[in-house]
Amino acid sequence: MKKISVAIIVGSDSDLPAVSSTTKVLDEFGISYSLNVASAHRTPEYVKQCIRNAERQGAKVFIAAAGMSAALPGAVAAETSLPVIGIPMEGKSLNGLDALFSIVQMPPGIPVATVALGKPGATNAAILAAEVLSVGDTRMKSKINAYRKKMADTIIKKDRMLKKSGIEKYISENQAKR
Amino acid sequence: MKKISVAIIVGSDSDLPAVSSTTKVLDEFGISYSLNVASAHRTPEYVKQCIRNAERQGAKVFIAAAGMSAALPGAVAAETSLPVIGIPMEGKSLNGLDALFSIVQMPPGIPVATVALGKPGATNAAILAAEVLSVGDTRMKSKINAYRKKMADTIIKKDRMLKKSGIEKYISENQAKR
Amino acid sequence: MKKISVAIIVGSDSDLPAVSSTTKVLDEFGISYSLNVASAHRTPEYVKQCIRNAERQGAKVFIAAAGMSAALPGAVAAETSLPVIGIPMEGKSLNGLDALFSIVQMPPGIPVATVALGKPGATNAAILAAEVLSVGDTRMKSKINAYRKKMADTIIKKDRMLKKSGIEKYISENQAKR
Amino acid sequence: MKKISVAIIVGSDSDLPAVSSTTKVLDEFGISYSLNVASAHRTPEYVKQCIRNAERQGAKVFIAAAGMSAALPGAVAAETSLPVIGIPMEGKSLNGLDALFSIVQMPPGIPVATVALGKPGATNAAILAAEVLSVGDTRMKSKINAYRKKMADTIIKKDRMLKKSGIEKYISENQAKR
Amino acid sequence: MKKISVAIIVGSDSDLPAVSSTTKVLDEFGISYSLNVASAHRTPEYVKQCIRNAERQGAKVFIAAAGMSAALPGAVAAETSLPVIGIPMEGKSLNGLDALFSIVQMPPGIPVATVALGKPGATNAAILAAEVLSVGDTRMKSKINAYRKKMADTIIKKDRMLKKSGIEKYISENQAKR
Amino acid sequence: MKKISVAIIVGSDSDLPAVSSTTKVLDEFGISYSLNVASAHRTPEYVKQCIRNAERQGAKVFIAAAGMSAALPGAVAAETSLPVIGIPMEGKSLNGLDALFSIVQMPPGIPVATVALGKPGATNAAILAAEVLSVGDTRMKSKINAYRKKMADTIIKKDRMLKKSGIEKYISENQAKR
Amino acid sequence: MKKISVAIIVGSDSDLPAVSSTTKVLDEFGISYSLNVASAHRTPEYVKQCIRNAERQGAKVFIAAAGMSAALPGAVAAETSLPVIGIPMEGKSLNGLDALFSIVQMPPGIPVATVALGKPGATNAAILAAEVLSVGDTRMKSKINAYRKKMADTIIKKDRMLKKSGIEKYISENQAKR
Amino acid sequence: MKKISVAIIVGSDSDLPAVSSTTKVLDEFGISYSLNVASAHRTPEYVKQCIRNAERQGAKVFIAAAGMSAALPGAVAAETSLPVIGIPMEGKSLNGLDALFSIVQMPPGIPVATVALGKPGATNAAILAAEVLSVGDTRMKSKINAYRKKMADTIIKKDRMLKKSGIEKYISENQAKR
Repeated sequence: MKKISVAIIVGSDSDLPAVSSTTKVLDEFGISYSLNVASAHRTPEYVKQCIRNAERQGAKVFIAAAGMSAALPGAVAAETSLPVIGIPMEGKSLNGLDALFSIVQMPPGIPVATVALGKPGATNAAILAAEVLSVGDTRMKSKINAYRKKMADTIIKKDRMLKKSGIEKYISENQAKR
Repeated sequence: MKKISVAIIVGSDSDLPAVSSTTKVLDEFGISYSLNVASAHRTPEYVKQCIRNAERQGAKVFIAAAGMSAALPGAVAAETSLPVIGIPMEGKSLNGLDALFSIVQMPPGIPVATVALGKPGATNAAILAAEVLSVGDTRMKSKINAYRKKMADTIIKKDRMLKKSGIEKYISENQAKR
Repeated sequence: MKKISVAIIVGSDSDLPAVSSTTKVLDEFGISYSLNVASAHRTPEYVKQCIRNAERQGAKVFIAAAGMSAALPGAVAAETSLPVIGIPMEGKSLNGLDALFSIVQMPPGIPVATVALGKPGATNAAILAAEVLSVGDTRMKSKINAYRKKMADTIIKKDRMLKKSGIEKYISENQAKR
Repeated sequence: MKKISVAIIVGSDSDLPAVSSTTKVLDEFGISYSLNVASAHRTPEYVKQCIRNAERQGAKVFIAAAGMSAALPGAVAAETSLPVIGIPMEGKSLNGLDALFSIVQMPPGIPVATVALGKPGATNAAILAAEVLSVGDTRMKSKINAYRKKMADTIIKKDRMLKKSGIEKYISENQAKR
Repeated sequence: MKKISVAIIVGSDSDLPAVSSTTKVLDEFGISYSLNVASAHRTPEYVKQCIRNAERQGAKVFIAAAGMSAALPGAVAAETSLPVIGIPMEGKSLNGLDALFSIVQMPPGIPVATVALGKPGATNAAILAAEVLSVGDTRMKSKINAYRKKMADTIIKKDRMLKKSGIEKYISENQAKR
Repeated sequence: MKKISVAIIVGSDSDLPAVSSTTKVLDEFGISYSLNVASAHRTPEYVKQCIRNAERQGAKVFIAAAGMSAALPGAVAAETSLPVIGIPMEGKSLNGLDALFSIVQMPPGIPVATVALGKPGATNAAILAAEVLSVGDTRMKSKINAYRKKMADTIIKKDRMLKKSGIEKYISENQAKR
Repeated sequence: MKKISVAIIVGSDSDLPAVSSTTKVLDEFGISYSLNVASAHRTPEYVKQCIRNAERQGAKVFIAAAGMSAALPGAVAAETSLPVIGIPMEGKSLNGLDALFSIVQMPPGIPVATVALGKPGATNAAILAAEVLSVGDTRMKSKINAYRKKMADTIIKKDRMLKKSGIEKYISENQAKR
Repeated sequence: MKKISVAIIVGSDSDLPAVSSTTKVLDEFGISYSLNVASAHRTPEYVKQCIRNAERQGAKVFIAAAGMSAALPGAVAAETSLPVIGIPMEGKSLNGLDALFSIVQMPPGIPVATVALGKPGATNAAILAAEVLSVGDTRMKSKINAYRKKMADTIIKKDRMLKKSGIEKYISENQAKR
């Protein structure tokens, strides 16, 4: 049985492109994780099974991503007393407001730590998981600080490139790269 | 074991004042029902137990009311293939939009029949349940038609009173009554 | 005169691509249905005629889909005491909020069973209709349970593929299929 | 049979306190009108009857007020080719957004002239009706201009009182009056 | 000096593609009109000049279209006592909610007859103008009734084609046409 | 003719209680101002007259407060090239979203410097005006810095009281004061 | 120097009544905490000082509550790599949507664990903090499980009282208690 | 050290395409400026450094653009008593409502002068900066008036072209140009 620190569950495989931002950051931090597709509404028993497995594998934090009525993060939180991070997925019709409200507006007693909509939230879910794991793990803390430092350096480097190139040239160069 | 036609579950006892509109209409239609307080997030196992009990008692329709992230109607729908009617409760902060979106935006495969926010929805949940039960029950159909007739008569009676009193007198007379 | 179980009315032929999810599921369940284009605002008499015809053909449930001010589901509910399921169509300007509010916020007395916006709602309208028909029809109940089982199996199969492929390979393989 | 210029229909007698702003302005303009309570969903036939009566009485403009799913103005517009003015009523749960969207988002072909939510809209419905009647009625035009003049004079008079009293005294004097 | 019945003002030439729906319907009804680009914020004097010109040319109804803060319809209404119809334009960022609120939420005293967002509203603005002009013009009334008849016939014709083709064939045939 | 630095215009005298926060701060900063009630829709000419008067009195900044469709700040900005600060008033029905969108979503070319809804915005309008006046006025800059210092000191003083009293006692003591 | 596990910062002392739900739960769990009033916009340096002090006192989790533009939780997250929990406060004008969006929509790299609006969120912030602290602290885990058990028992007890009293009596008894 | 009048800071280089509208207008007005990429959350110290540098270079106005939780404009306002203009960037998920609310809903004491979402706001930020600088600079005032005159002339020129071409030809000619 593989040991893991973080258990990720997505409500639908259509959430995976966004959630790949989560796994990339976890890989970068060297955090082991499991990843499951399981639906709170369509496979409620399987969701529980995933939770039980993850707990047995030593998971310390859950990350759950879902769109629309987005019951998954709350359903996970109802079944475990480990911290649960919820990522609201952007839907087609309501800009993700449906998922955001469903995930963040948990009743008193059962919290879900909600992050931003879509890819930015998926990235932050991984970092938040790392921060939770870093409570009493100084090596993880160093990794987070290094990640932050690199991020800050990138911005300052862009600032210098902007100063050198000027706005018009900077825009066209960066559009070309994309 | 008492036989029931409708099983009502509310996510919190603070939903009961609104849901009393549901029970009043069911009483009026002579429809037997059970009523439970059970929370999708705080007592997930008890929710299931209520569902199993209700099915054993012969329930044919579920009604679930919840506010905020309002997972209850969907959680019930995930556990039964009977029709589930969801009543979104008005919350303090988001005008009930959170509950409405959570309840109505179910993923494909597991529907919840969503009605209006708060008391009007609670009334309509009972009538919708009666309509579902009336499929193949001509006596229930007659009751619904009688209910509709009475409702229409009340409006037409008000229209006549308004014609007789004029708007100002009508308003003051009706404010006095309240 | 063809016998039907479900009568579908759409407010505009531009709703048909979404509503094809409804007819596909009804076909899958072997449920007979009629399908009409009729507008509550532009052909109010024709809407009534469709309702009368459907009732004569034995319809037990109505499904109505409409966008923008989306009066159709309520207009159908005003003319029949059979259960009416409403599908809000996503519009261009207001993300379908206009249709959702119009359909779900019915006044006390005349319910519309509202499902999710767009295609997911169109799928669920059919399943909800099947659930209503299954009240007192054990064969329909079995079909719903089989449908749910298949749906759950698909998710669990995807979960296994994801475990085997890993997230990056899974995403690229599934994008290729589309 | 009393001759009328404007026919007002409200979807519920709870709309009358707001709509009393409409009748006050019509009275002030000397415009004759009828006033009915009739519900698009609960008394659809009676709505039509009111429309036919109003047309027979010579109505040239309709005003319809409704809250929640607010189908009434559109239902009136579907049955008459006279101009229909719609007043969205403020509801408890959605701040009147539901009524506003339902009334204003009419499909191409059947317009409803929508005014502001609640009392301000009820006042403006009457003025808009007067403006429509003034097309080819120079005496009505003069009345509208006199009404506007009086309104402007009131504001300028308030402006002078404010200059004389200063803001603190003005506020306390006017709170006392209320 | 050309005589006109309707004066159209748009706040920006980017509104013209939507407003071409207005002019097409006015052309179809044989209603003469003027059409100006003038901005309430950028050319306030020119807006007034357009209004004065239109009044001199005999305009009986104004139509004003604008997006974003959409002050134009209200600014026109502030300068004329003729009926003013406002068309909210869909913007890029707020789905047209900004324009809708600005146009419909007029203070008591100065109404704007607001229609739906974008193209559907632009079509309806023309029909509403025709309805206003038809007050005391029986020939215009006939044209409106003919227009409505044609519109209803089109829908019923589509309904027959749908019956004949079935949904899948109907969708593919109509996608091909577009 | 009194010299002024800031000209305040409110769209309705019902805005004065909120706007008294503006005049209090201006008084505190020793900034001279005029204050007018004038409506963009009901007294458009008087608005212009107020603007011309204010410019003649040497006004350097305008502050305009309005609710609902809130055209006033934009109407002022259309008539002057001085900076215009707009305060959106909270309305009854749409939580002030109507006023906020109308004021902030100005078209390119004519800005309005928008501040927060209601009283907090009214306070900030005065401070923003002071900041604008402080450009090239070092004494005003000192006053702003002193104001900020006092504000910060108040917060830190509260923080100390909280530490001393503990949360329960602090809450009850401060509720008593109110 | 007092040792603490959780550091709470509120943006304004008006947030304290809601945040007293946080401190009550922390007290119940026996978790030591500091509590400061400090504003991201009005006392940015003092916010940093509070963070530094809290870190020196051994804080492992931050909780920050703020309303309106609600920059505080993000400002704390920008200065520490410990997990930061953000509680959006309900404001007067925008129902707390402003605070919710500001707190949850953090850019990739700096997460804030957002909980529900107002008091329910304040309760959940404390529980989430306990969950984070329980990572590697089995005694805390037991306390959370006991808390959950008690919460579930309360609901089931209410369910029994409801069964015994019936809905009408239950409602009147519980209203009396309040 | 280069002297500047305006200091622009953007929270991310992805804001630059929109903000190029700001720099174009500043260039057109001959206003010197600095331009930095710096993030309130990811490089809080660098933001302060940019502010200090800008003040040393003589900046009189700040312009800050940011999306999502958009803390940057408020963070700048917290550190300087110069006027700060905030441009909310349109995000992918919430239409820019998140950024708009975060920037405009500043607490009393620290204003941000908020302009429209996206490119229109970016243009207006530059003009508002020019207006602030024109307080006591008659040459700048003339430039603003000239800019406004040119803008008005462009609209009137378009109005003439529209009159000459007619709507259909005008639309197709202008689509071709794009």
